[in-house]
Formats: sequence, structure tokens, C-alpha cells
Amino acid sequence: MRAARLLHLRSLLQTRTQCRANSILSHEPSGPKMNTEIPGPKSKEFIKKLEKTQNPFSTVFVLDVEKSIGNYSVDIDGNVMLDVYEQIASLPLGYNHPSIQKVFQDPKNLSQLVNRPALGVHPTPQFIKQIEEILLPVAPKGLEYVQPMMCGSCSNENAFKAICIWYADKHRDGKPFTDEDLKSSMYNKAPGCPTVSLMSFEGAFHGRTFGALSCTHSKPIHKLDIPSFDWPIAPFPRYKYPLEANERENAKEDEKCLARIEELFHEYKSKQKPVVGVVVEPIQSEGGDYHGSPNFFQQLQKLTNQNGAALLVDEVQTGLGATGKFWAHEYFNLPASPDIVTFSKKFQTGGYFAKAKFQPKQPYRIFNTWMGEPAKMLVLDAILKTVKEENLIENTRKTGDLFLNGLKNVSKQYPQLVLNTRGLGTFCAFDMPSASVRDKFINQMRNAGIQIGACGDVSVRFRPALIFTEKHANIVLNKMVEVAKNF
Amino acid sequence: MRAARLLHLRSLLQTRTQCRANSILSHEPSGPKMNTEIPGPKSKEFIKKLEKTQNPFSTVFVLDVEKSIGNYSVDIDGNVMLDVYEQIASLPLGYNHPSIQKVFQDPKNLSQLVNRPALGVHPTPQFIKQIEEILLPVAPKGLEYVQPMMCGSCSNENAFKAICIWYADKHRDGKPFTDEDLKSSMYNKAPGCPTVSLMSFEGAFHGRTFGALSCTHSKPIHKLDIPSFDWPIAPFPRYKYPLEANERENAKEDEKCLARIEELFHEYKSKQKPVVGVVVEPIQSEGGDYHGSPNFFQQLQKLTNQNGAALLVDEVQTGLGATGKFWAHEYFNLPASPDIVTFSKKFQTGGYFAKAKFQPKQPYRIFNTWMGEPAKMLVLDAILKTVKEENLIENTRKTGDLFLNGLKNVSKQYPQLVLNTRGLGTFCAFDMPSASVRDKFINQMRNAGIQIGACGDVSVRFRPALIFTEKHANIVLNKMVEVAKNF
Repeated sequence: MRAARLLHLRSLLQTRTQCRANSILSHEPSGPKMNTEIPGPKSKEFIKKLEKTQNPFSTVFVLDVEKSIGNYSVDIDGNVMLDVYEQIASLPLGYNHPSIQKVFQDPKNLSQLVNRPALGVHPTPQFIKQIEEILLPVAPKGLEYVQPMMCGSCSNENAFKAICIWYADKHRDGKPFTDEDLKSSMYNKAPGCPTVSLMSFEGAFHGRTFGALSCTHSKPIHKLDIPSFDWPIAPFPRYKYPLEANERENAKEDEKCLARIEELFHEYKSKQKPVVGVVVEPIQSEGGDYHGSPNFFQQLQKLTNQNGAALLVDEVQTGLGATGKFWAHEYFNLPASPDIVTFSKKFQTGGYFAKAKFQPKQPYRIFNTWMGEPAKMLVLDAILKTVKEENLIENTRKTGDLFLNGLKNVSKQYPQLVLNTRGLGTFCAFDMPSASVRDKFINQMRNAGIQIGACGDVSVRFRPALIFTEKHANIVLNKMVEVAKNF
Repeated sequence: MRAARLLHLRSLLQTRTQCRANSILSHEPSGPKMNTEIPGPKSKEFIKKLEKTQNPFSTVFVLDVEKSIGNYSVDIDGNVMLDVYEQIASLPLGYNHPSIQKVFQDPKNLSQLVNRPALGVHPTPQFIKQIEEILLPVAPKGLEYVQPMMCGSCSNENAFKAICIWYADKHRDGKPFTDEDLKSSMYNKAPGCPTVSLMSFEGAFHGRTFGALSCTHSKPIHKLDIPSFDWPIAPFPRYKYPLEANERENAKEDEKCLARIEELFHEYKSKQKPVVGVVVEPIQSEGGDYHGSPNFFQQLQKLTNQNGAALLVDEVQTGLGATGKFWAHEYFNLPASPDIVTFSKKFQTGGYFAKAKFQPKQPYRIFNTWMGEPAKMLVLDAILKTVKEENLIENTRKTGDLFLNGLKNVSKQYPQLVLNTRGLGTFCAFDMPSASVRDKFINQMRNAGIQIGACGDVSVRFRPALIFTEKHANIVLNKMVEVAKNF
């Protein structure tokens, strides 16, 4: 008995050490391997079960979370797919990464995992250290205040609120609330609840709760039938590709958008709905992977400042390295940092970084029961350490360069099918001639073992993990050619 | 070496077995034990650190999550407090419950903990089973559809959306969207984004994101400076206590509120902002622990039906047994189930139960990246099994009866200080003569080792875990008398 137990213990220790010593990539399969169409018969059976209690229409396949590994997702029919979408861009280290496994295996973490505190009233010393040692070291330059949240939508909603509070306080010259403020606020009326506005962009996506949804304009199906705030909506640049051949035209596009933004500031001021903040993605993702030039963002920041508003950069999808820089807005060489930067997805925890002036002066204004979660911070810590140790952002930049070049080559081979290739790091995309062609292409790619995503009306987006390497990029490119050839 | 390892392994196994065999209560301290004032010097030091990056004004003390156990929270100054507030009513089994520890210790759960999937597109078979075997068995009668979410606010926001979608589909007679619907929706305009409204109540609390906040009217500080929807706000009954001595007057109060609700339906219909849903807490919690009678809720449901709107009962704070029934609305003997019931807090996961007709017919309308979390479902499973095995709802009902009686006795002893004692199960509260008296009382109770919460303008609320027993109730009551005596 004793010997058997010891042997078991030893083998456990060995497995663990091996896992640590080798990179996750050495545990991956050599490539995709498909057994069935997607969804396969077992997935279909489970989807049928879901129908009884859920809306199953968006379900693609049922995931075998135990067998999925690294860049490869495995479904319950045993199909092995190279996953270049990673749970809607939310897994930075792919599946079952040993550094994240360790978080849950370490008995030292148990009490933090078991007891979720209400961090706004009873923070733990561990959480206070996590703020200092995990979140602040990755803060965008110039942003010294951080507020953890739960998901992307609530990060944006709370950042919007911080902007509204800052703006109102500024216009009150720091004076206390009047009785009229207090009373009217309880009935959703001005002056307590003022008719200020947030400016957002055509094609933008900032989430699906009522405030975030009022700034989302990517697809009608997200917005139909839901009441919305009358807030200004500006055009976001739509460039011609390749960029180097269309510089003059694209610069004009920037000018046109900026002129309209300026107009909207004035229009909403005279409508008594002054713009308190501008909300923008560094790359419009859900809306179709639309990029704005550094010049566009620099001018946008200038206009925003001139109009006394705050600039919020929503890095929920772009943050944590996918573009080859930690924050995508680093590409814009802004003369000063944005006022607020929101994050979620790859961070596992939502939240926002902000300048100190966006910290309300009174308690309970930016508040909820949980205010984030220590367990998620433990996972984020493991992620950030691995990203650093394994140079994963550099990897993403290098792999991204190769991958984008490869996409451009495929586009040259199939110029009627693969259009407007573009990207930063591995955050790449291209357009197709129509939505139906795009949907068919994604479906065929999936059945060839490559899991990619749609965005906008006609675009295909790649959102691989940060452990996506040249080898994986080549598999994707080869499969694209294979699928395109027989399309 | 080998012998030492074996010994270590054995002692680990023993500890675990002991923990399982004994109730958590046997590991609790015998009562509160205070070393310092709250916050103590160590808490103060950490709060100072927080100030650099966070708004620390709501922080009460810094929690020692490792030493806290059962009904007792321990702070980092070593103060042992009987916790009758439980992280804003969010811990059903108190601290470090072995059944929740097991979730994280079981290697079988590892892959579910490590890989958070995008459940809307790639659910896991485990998650589909969790829906069936964990959530559906506790569904309010008549509600067969369930949508997990992240927190209370996003549960309410998405439930609001489901109501708006249902209402619009009904009024379109199931016809497809027009081009005008599609185009206008992208610019936040009607008819795509219609000017419908949700009715809520004075004193209500439904969360702090823009939609939820438009239905929240508990305190101005939550709402000031934030733009809000012009939605109808109805009075919620304000009863005289003791109820049995004020039956006639309280019935009149119901009538008055119901008459105004009926008026508001008509007012907002003629304002072209028809009411699509009524959002109500079974007990207004944050707003001051205001109860409504079964008759009030029955009539409210009738009026809501008559006006073609949906009834949403927000059980974020009341759900999962705290009132002595699993759902607080079970007390109202409604002739039919509410249309939607939202939950969060004690459930660890947010979400809502709904009638099948509130399931949108198209995908991506109720959707986000995560759509809940399998890890939280594992914890919920452990919680619900413990609640069942240990008869914790019955315990809460019995303990609640004793506790409320005890509170009434304290009120008789100190009728100028402790007013309007009320409650269901251990979900109890009382009023004090003023906010400043209340705040001073809560502070003195905390320094005497009892952690309780404030709500409304002048109320004290108790939100113990479901493992709160007669013994704990007596400690609280004795400390109340002690504090009141020297007040």
C-alpha cells in the first residue's frame, strides 16, 4: 500500500515538473484533424438539449475543454481544430496552460478562490497587492488609477459614469450638490441626472448593456427593439487598401471624419446635450476590423480636449498584446495618454485604467457588490508572468508580420476572394466579396480544421492566442489556399 | 525522506476528512473577539495603499480571508467579528466552507476552472449539464428558460432587453424587421430603437449600469451626474409597523400605490413611451428593507398583465433562501409565476429565469463574450447541495422567527432607538431615529464584534449566511442590548 501511494505521488510530481519544463506547444497535436462535419453528431445532440432552456442559435460546436490544448480546440466529436479565434479573443495562452493550472493547484490560493469578497467594502491584503503588483505595472503610461470590474460591458459602463461624474464636478466648480440636484436625480431628471452625452462611432462595439449599447453601432441585431440614448454618432475612417497606394485618399477620409466629429460637438452642445466623452476602439473589431491612422487618433484627442471632453479608448478586444504592443493605442504616438482605457477578455477580469481626476470624490459612486475578483487576478498574474518570461508580445509582433505577409500573398493569388488584408501583430483581418461568401468560407475553413471568426458585414478576423507561432500561421495560410482553390 | 512524505500526505488526508466530517460551525470561534477599533492599524495601513490607486472611502476593514470561518469574518488586525452582512449578502455558506473548498481541490474540475469558454458559441457538455442539473431544479415555478450572466446589474440589463424584444415582437405580430427598423437602429433612433419604458419604484435598487440605474432610486449618490432614461417611477408601499395594528392603513397604502401605477401606465402610453415591463424587488433591500404585501404584488401582477407588460422580480438580494423560502416571491401566492426572475449574489453567478416566450427568436440578441461561467456553476452546485443536505432554508426560517422575535423584544426595551422591526427568515431589519444615530449604532456594533449593514435613510439590515443559527442570533441580540444600554 505504502509503496503504491508513494509511486502515485511520485508520478504526479513528475507529470507536473514535465509540464512546467516544456512549453505548452510541445503538447499540441501536429495539426488539425477532423472526424466529422461541424457541428458533429455529439455536438448536435447537446445543442438539442440546450434548445429546451437556452437560445442555441449562436452555438458553433460543443467544446471538449479537457482535451483542448494550446492553440488547438477539440470538440466533443473529437475534431481537433487550430483555434485562431480563442473564445472570442479571450484566451491569451490558449487552452490548459500549465501556468494557469498551477493557480488552481496551489493550496496557498485556496482561500482566495473560495471566498469572493465585496472588494469595495472589505478588500483583502492580497487584492491590494494584486492591484499594485499585477495591474499597475501594465497600466498605460500616464494612467495611475485602476478600477477592476467584471466584464467588458460593465467596464465601459462604469468608465462612462466616471467621465460623467468628472465632467459634472468640473462644471459645478467642485461645489456641493444642491437640493434640486438631489431631488431631481431620484426621478431620473435634470439637473441631478443631466442630459449630457457620450460620442461614439459608426461601426463601433462597446458592449450590450443599455449605456454601452447606446455607443454600439456594429450590427442592427444587437440594437433592435432596445431603447437607446440620443447620443452623437460620428463616422470612423474607412480606408482603401493597400494603405501605401491610397495615402492621399485615406488622409481625406480622416479629415472628413474629423470635420463631422467637430460638428457633432457643436450640434450636441446646442441641443443641450454636451459631449462629456468620446468612446473609441483603437481598431473597430466586432464592426469589421476597421483601423484609424495615428493622425486620426492624434487629431481626435486634440478635438476632444478642445471641447472639454474625455477620451476613452476601449481596449477590451485589443489589449494585452494581440496587436504586437501591450496596448494597441501605443501605435498612435499620442502626445498625451488617453484619459481612460478599458479592458477585459484576455485579462480575465474587466476594469479600467484612468487618470487620477476620474476618481470620484465621494464613495459609492463607482461601486457594486464585487468590484472585480481576486481569483481572476491570480489567473491574470500567471498570464502576465508567462507573457513576460516567454516574450509573447514580441512573438506576436514577429508572427504577425509573417502572417500578414502570408495573407497578402494569398490575396494576390485570390484577388477576387481575399480583399483588403490588414492587421497589427496577429490581430489580422481581410474582407470577402459578400456576407454569404464570407460565411461559406468560414464554414469551410472550420471543416478543414481552422476555427476563425466573422466581423462586420463581409470580414474575417483572426484572434489567435499569444502563443500562436510561425508554424501555426503556416498551417492557417496553407488551409486558406486549399479552401480558396476549391471555392 | 519517504516516511516523512507519507506522513505529510496522511496528515493532509486526515485534515481533509475531518473538515468534511464536521459541520463548519464546529470550527468557528465561540464568539466575537476584538483587539482594536475598526479599522485597526493594519487595515488603516492597507487602506492608505489603496488610496493611491482606488477610491478607498467605502472600505470598512481589510479582510483576512484565510482566518475567516463560517459566520465569522476576521480582519488583518486579528479582530474576530460575527458577520451578519456576509459581503453584502453574497456568501450563503459563510467563509471557507469545506464543500466549496472541495470544488477547487478536485482535480476533475481543473479544466473547467482553467479555461473560461465563450458559452454563447462554444458551450461545454459540463455547462449544458450544469444548466439542467443545477439551475433548472431551483427555477421558480413556471419559468423554464434560464440565461446565466456575470453579475446582478448585467442580469437585470439583459432581462430588460429580453422584455423589450418580446414586447416589440408581439407588437410587430412576429413580422420581420423593416429596412427603416434596421437603419434607424444603427443611429439609436425609433422605430429601430423604440421609446418604450420600464416602470420601477421609488426606493428601488436594481444595479448601477445605465439601464439598471434608470430603475434605481434608492439614494441620490448612486444617480447624480449620470444621464438617465425618462421612465415611469411609481411609489412602493411604506407600511406602518407593527403590521397587525395597522392593517387598514396599510391596505390604503397599497391602494394608493396601485392607483398611481395604473395612472403611470396610461401617462407613459400617451407620452409614446409605453411601459413594456415592471421591475420590482420582493423586498426593497438597498432602499431600506421595505416590504410589500402579497395583495400588493398580486394586484401589481394583474395591472401589469392588463397593460400588456411583463413582470420582472429582481431576487438578486433575496434569492437563495435568505427569507426562509428559496425565492422571496413565493410568499406572495401569485396566481401565476412572474415573467422573469433575476438572480446573482448568493448564486455566485448572475442570470435570469424566464418564461419561454422571453427567448429571442434570433441569435446574438442576448449575448456577450462569456454568458456566465462554468467555474461559478461548480461553486453553486456545492452550495445548493449543502443547502439541501443541511436543511439550511428551514434553518433560516426557524432561526429567522427566533431572531425577529428577539429584535421585537429589543425594540420593546428600547422603543426610542429600535423601530419598525420587520423581516422574513433572517432577512431582517429595523429603523433608527436618524441616519446619524444609525451610523453610530452600526459603528458601535462593529466595534463590539458584530458586522451589520445599513440600508435606506435610517435602517439597519441583517444579511447573515444560511448557516446562521439560534446561537449566533442570541450573540447579536445580546450585543444589541449591550450597545443600546450605553448609547
